[in-house]
Amino acid sequence: MSSKPSAPAPTLERLATYLQLLSELQAQGVETVSSADIEQTAGIGAAQFRKDVSFFGGFGKPGVGYDVSELLSQIASILRIDHEQTCLLIGAGNLGAALAAYPGFSAYNFHIAAVFDNDPKKIGTSFNGLIVRDISELCKVNDAIDAKIALLAVPAQNAQDVADLLVAAGIKAIMNFAPVYLKTSPKVYVRNAYFLQELAVLSFRLHQAEEERFSH
Amino acid sequence: MSSKPSAPAPTLERLATYLQLLSELQAQGVETVSSADIEQTAGIGAAQFRKDVSFFGGFGKPGVGYDVSELLSQIASILRIDHEQTCLLIGAGNLGAALAAYPGFSAYNFHIAAVFDNDPKKIGTSFNGLIVRDISELCKVNDAIDAKIALLAVPAQNAQDVADLLVAAGIKAIMNFAPVYLKTSPKVYVRNAYFLQELAVLSFRLHQAEEERFSH
Repeated sequence: MSSKPSAPAPTLERLATYLQLLSELQAQGVETVSSADIEQTAGIGAAQFRKDVSFFGGFGKPGVGYDVSELLSQIASILRIDHEQTCLLIGAGNLGAALAAYPGFSAYNFHIAAVFDNDPKKIGTSFNGLIVRDISELCKVNDAIDAKIALLAVPAQNAQDVADLLVAAGIKAIMNFAPVYLKTSPKVYVRNAYFLQELAVLSFRLHQAEEERFSH
Repeated sequence: MSSKPSAPAPTLERLATYLQLLSELQAQGVETVSSADIEQTAGIGAAQFRKDVSFFGGFGKPGVGYDVSELLSQIASILRIDHEQTCLLIGAGNLGAALAAYPGFSAYNFHIAAVFDNDPKKIGTSFNGLIVRDISELCKVNDAIDAKIALLAVPAQNAQDVADLLVAAGIKAIMNFAPVYLKTSPKVYVRNAYFLQELAVLSFRLHQAEEERFSH
C-alpha cells in the first residue's frame, strides 16, 4: 500500500545527516540552503544531495535553493519521525542513563515509556522520571504500552537472552548497544550501534593517513 | 609505502562484523568456519565474505573452511588493532562512564590514557582508575601522552569548541558521540557515532515493514 519508494541504508544515513545540518541551520535562522552549501558543510557532494532529495520528490528553486523548514519536514516524514514513537529502554546502567539523557531521541520524537533492569538494587528506583521495572515484567508491561522499538543497553553476556524476551514481548525493532551480534527472526529489525564498526573504520583510516604522510 | 590496499567504509564495517563473529566463535572453541556459516549467522552473503577476505589475501581450504584464529589475526592486522592505541576521553558524564566501561575498546586494543572535563566538581575526582583532568590542560597533557585518537562525549553545545582544542592538541582521529556535525580540517578523520543515523534507518525500516504487512 505504500506509495513511498524503498531506500538503501546509505541513502537513509545521508538523509539523517541532512536533517542534522538543516536543524542546525534552522536554529541559526537560515531560511534557504543551496546544494553547494550542503557540500561545503557536510562533505556530501552537491549532485548527490540533489539526487537524494529529488528521489523523494523534493525540489529546490533555481537561484534560490531549498527551503530549510520545508526540506526538514519532508525528510522527517520520509524517516517517519514526524510523529511520536514509543520505545522501551532495557538497562538502567551508565549507558542507559546516557541514552535517556540523549537529546537525539527527543529530536527524533522517540519517547522512552518504560525502563527495565534485572538488578534488584535498581528495580523500583527512579530513573530519568521513570521507575525502573523488573525485566521479568517486560511482556506484561508492553501489553499495555505496545511499544515496537527497544533500546538494548545491557551487558554483552545478557544481550541475546534479553533480545529473545523483547521479540516475545512484541518488539519489532531493536537498537542494540551491546557488542554482540544478535540472532533474531528476520521479521525483527536490528540496528547495531555498538561502535565496533566505527572503531574499525576510525583505526584503519588513521593509520592509512599516517602511511600516506610517511610515503611523501 | 603502504603495500596494503585501501578499502571503502562498508568493507571495513563488514570486516568489523566478521571480527565480532569470529571472536564469539573462538570463545566457543570453534576452530574453523565456512562462508556458509558466516552467511547464516551474520546475514552477509557467503560470496561477499569470500570476496572481502580474498581481497586482503586470506584464503580458506576447500572442504575445511577458514581457520578462525588465523582469520581473526589477519583482520585485526588489516584494521590496525593488533597493537595498543592510546586515546583520550573527553567528557566524564554518563556517556563517558559508559564508554570507559565499554568492553569493545579493550577488545580493539584502545587504551584510554586520560579523561578530561570542564566541570570543576568533576576535575580531580577518580574516574575508572584515572583522575579527571581540566580540559584547559589538554594540550599540555597530550604533549606527554601523544595520543592520536579522542572519544568526544561532551554536550552538543560544547562539541565544536572541544573538537578545535583536540585538533590543536595533535589529535588526528575523533570519534564523535555528540549529535553535532563537526567542522574540522580534512586531515583530521571524524567518525560520527551519534546514533541519529542509526535511529533514522531503524525508524524507516520499522514503518516500511509495517506497511508491507498491511499491504499483504
